[in-house]
Amino acid sequence: MFEIFNNKKILITGGAGFIGSNLAHCLVKHGAKVTIVDSMIPDYGGNLQNLVEIRDKITINFSDVRDRYSMEYLIGGQDYLFNLAGQVSHIDSMIDPFADLEINAKSQLSILEACRLFNPAIRIVFASTRQIYGRPQYLPVNESHPLDPPDVNGINKLAGERYHTLYSKVYGLHCAVLRLTNVYGPRQLVRHNRQGFIGWFVRQVVRGEKIRIFGTGNQRRDLVYVDDVVEALLLAGMSDDANGKIYNLGGSEPISLKELVELMIKINASGEFELVPFPEERKKIDIGDFYSSFDKIKNELGWSPTISLKEGLNRTFEYYQKVGQYYWE
Amino acid sequence: MFEIFNNKKILITGGAGFIGSNLAHCLVKHGAKVTIVDSMIPDYGGNLQNLVEIRDKITINFSDVRDRYSMEYLIGGQDYLFNLAGQVSHIDSMIDPFADLEINAKSQLSILEACRLFNPAIRIVFASTRQIYGRPQYLPVNESHPLDPPDVNGINKLAGERYHTLYSKVYGLHCAVLRLTNVYGPRQLVRHNRQGFIGWFVRQVVRGEKIRIFGTGNQRRDLVYVDDVVEALLLAGMSDDANGKIYNLGGSEPISLKELVELMIKINASGEFELVPFPEERKKIDIGDFYSSFDKIKNELGWSPTISLKEGLNRTFEYYQKVGQYYWE
Repeated sequence: MFEIFNNKKILITGGAGFIGSNLAHCLVKHGAKVTIVDSMIPDYGGNLQNLVEIRDKITINFSDVRDRYSMEYLIGGQDYLFNLAGQVSHIDSMIDPFADLEINAKSQLSILEACRLFNPAIRIVFASTRQIYGRPQYLPVNESHPLDPPDVNGINKLAGERYHTLYSKVYGLHCAVLRLTNVYGPRQLVRHNRQGFIGWFVRQVVRGEKIRIFGTGNQRRDLVYVDDVVEALLLAGMSDDANGKIYNLGGSEPISLKELVELMIKINASGEFELVPFPEERKKIDIGDFYSSFDKIKNELGWSPTISLKEGLNRTFEYYQKVGQYYWE
Repeated sequence: MFEIFNNKKILITGGAGFIGSNLAHCLVKHGAKVTIVDSMIPDYGGNLQNLVEIRDKITINFSDVRDRYSMEYLIGGQDYLFNLAGQVSHIDSMIDPFADLEINAKSQLSILEACRLFNPAIRIVFASTRQIYGRPQYLPVNESHPLDPPDVNGINKLAGERYHTLYSKVYGLHCAVLRLTNVYGPRQLVRHNRQGFIGWFVRQVVRGEKIRIFGTGNQRRDLVYVDDVVEALLLAGMSDDANGKIYNLGGSEPISLKELVELMIKINASGEFELVPFPEERKKIDIGDFYSSFDKIKNELGWSPTISLKEGLNRTFEYYQKVGQYYWE
C-alpha cells in the first residue's frame, strides 16, 4: 500500500522525536529518501537513540523550525513534508507562552509560506492535538465538537492547524491535519512528565517507581499505538481526499487511568501506584474524561487502529526494558 | 451610568484609530484620565485629526503593541485597558501574515503577560471580530456558531481572543471580549478600502466617486454605529458579569449592500454605484450574508444598539462633509 513512497523525498520536522522517528523507520523500510529536521531542544523529545537503526539511511539536519531560511532551503525539492515538530508540553506553554507561540504558530506560518512560494506541489501532513477540544461536551469527541483550548499550547496548535487548512483552501497546497490523542509506543520521551502521562507511567513501571495518579483514577482516555499513527500519517499524505481535511486519530478502547496502570503493571509483572489529589495548576487545565471518534478517517481514508492496547503495551515494555537506559537521562 | 470612569486611569491601544478615538472622547467626557497608545502605522487607522478636540486632555504615547517593554511600563498603574490595536485588513494579512501574527496574536500574549505580572487588577476589554465565524452556517450568528476564520487575520484574532479568555480563566484577570461586526461612524479610516467596505463607500459618496459593489449587491450585513460600540466597551469593562465572556456586538437592522448604498446616496443627496463581478482574491475569502445576534450582551449586560442606521449615517456624512479632507489623504 505504501509503495508510493519508494524513492520519494520526505522531510520530517521533529524527526528525531517519538512519532517522527517511528515514521522515519517506516519510510526507510518503504524505500523513501528521508531528511530529518530536529532542533534537539533538551526536554522536547529528540533523541538520536531513536534513529540508531537507520542512521546510515537517512539525512539528519539539526535545525529549528523557527529558523525560517534554513527551512525554506530544506523544503525545496521535497515530495512530502510530515510536519511534526512542536512544543508539546501544556505546562511549559504556560511558563513560556512565547516559545510555544513561535514554534507552534509562527513557524507553521513560515513553513507554509515557504511551501507556497518555493514548493507548491509538496504534500503536507500536520500533527495537531486533541487538546484543542478542551473539556468534552459529549463523548466520543468528533471533529464537529466545539473547540475550547485549555492552555496556551492549545490556542497556538489551533492557529497552526488553521493555517494549514487555510493554505489548502486559498492556495491549493495539499495539507492534511491529524488531531492525535494519547500516542504511546517505543521511542517516546519518558525523561519527564510534561509531555503527557503515558511515557511517564511506562518509565515508572519499568524502573520500579511508584506511579502517582491524580484524582480518582477513573478518568478515561483513548490511546493509540505509534505504528497506527504512522500509518495514518502516510495515508493522509498520499490520499487526495485528505486535502484540507482535519481528522481525529483516536484509539478504539477507552480505558481509565487506573485500569491502564493496572494493565501496565501486569504486563511488566511488577509495579505499584497510588491515587493522589490533583496539584492546583494541573487541576485548572485538566479536561476530565476524553476519548475521540475516528469514524471520519475510517470512512474517508480507511484507517482504523490495528494494534490492541495489550499488544502495543507489550511491545512498548519490551523496548524500554531493553534500551530504556538511553531514555531515562 | 458611566460615572465609574471618573478619575480612572485608562489605557487605550489603537487610541488614535476609529473606535479608540471615539472611546477616548467619551471617556474624557466622563472625567477619565486617558492614555492613548498608537503606532501610527500608515494605512492602519491612526489619525491625529481623530483627537484634535481632546488633545489637551489626554496623553498620547506613540508606540507599538509589539514593543513589549514599553507596553509593560505603560500598563503599570492603569485601571482599565481597552485593547483595540490591531492589524484589521484581511487582504493585508494574506500579503504579510507575519506582521498580522505579531500584532494580533503575539502582542496580545505579551500584553496579557504584562497585566498578569505587573497589574493583575487591571480590567481588560479586547476588540475581536465577527470575521472569525467565517461563512455563516445559520443566521443570525450567535456566539455558539462554529468558528472558521477565512483568512490569516481571522486565525490570529481568534488566538488573540482565546488568550484573553484563558488568562481570565487561569489567572483571574478581568478580560471581556467583544466580537465587532461592521462598525461605522465619524473618525473611521476612509483612505483605502482594505479595512472594510463602509468607510470606503462613505468616502466615495461624499467625493462623488462611483461605488463598485462586488457581486449582486444582495449580500446582507449588520452595521453598528460607533457610539453604540463605545457604550458596549465601557459596559464590558465595568461589569463583573463580563469577565471571561465573549459577546457579539451586532447591529439591529441587517441590510443589503445595495440598499445601504442607496440609503447613503439618499442621505448625501447625490452619488452613484454599479455592480461588478467579484475580484478573484476577494471571492476566495468572501463570506456571503452575515449578521449576528446580540441577544447575549443584551441579556447579560443590558446593551442594545440605540442609534438607527439612518441617524448614524446622517451623523457620519455630516462629519466627513465637514472635515473629510483630513481623511482622504
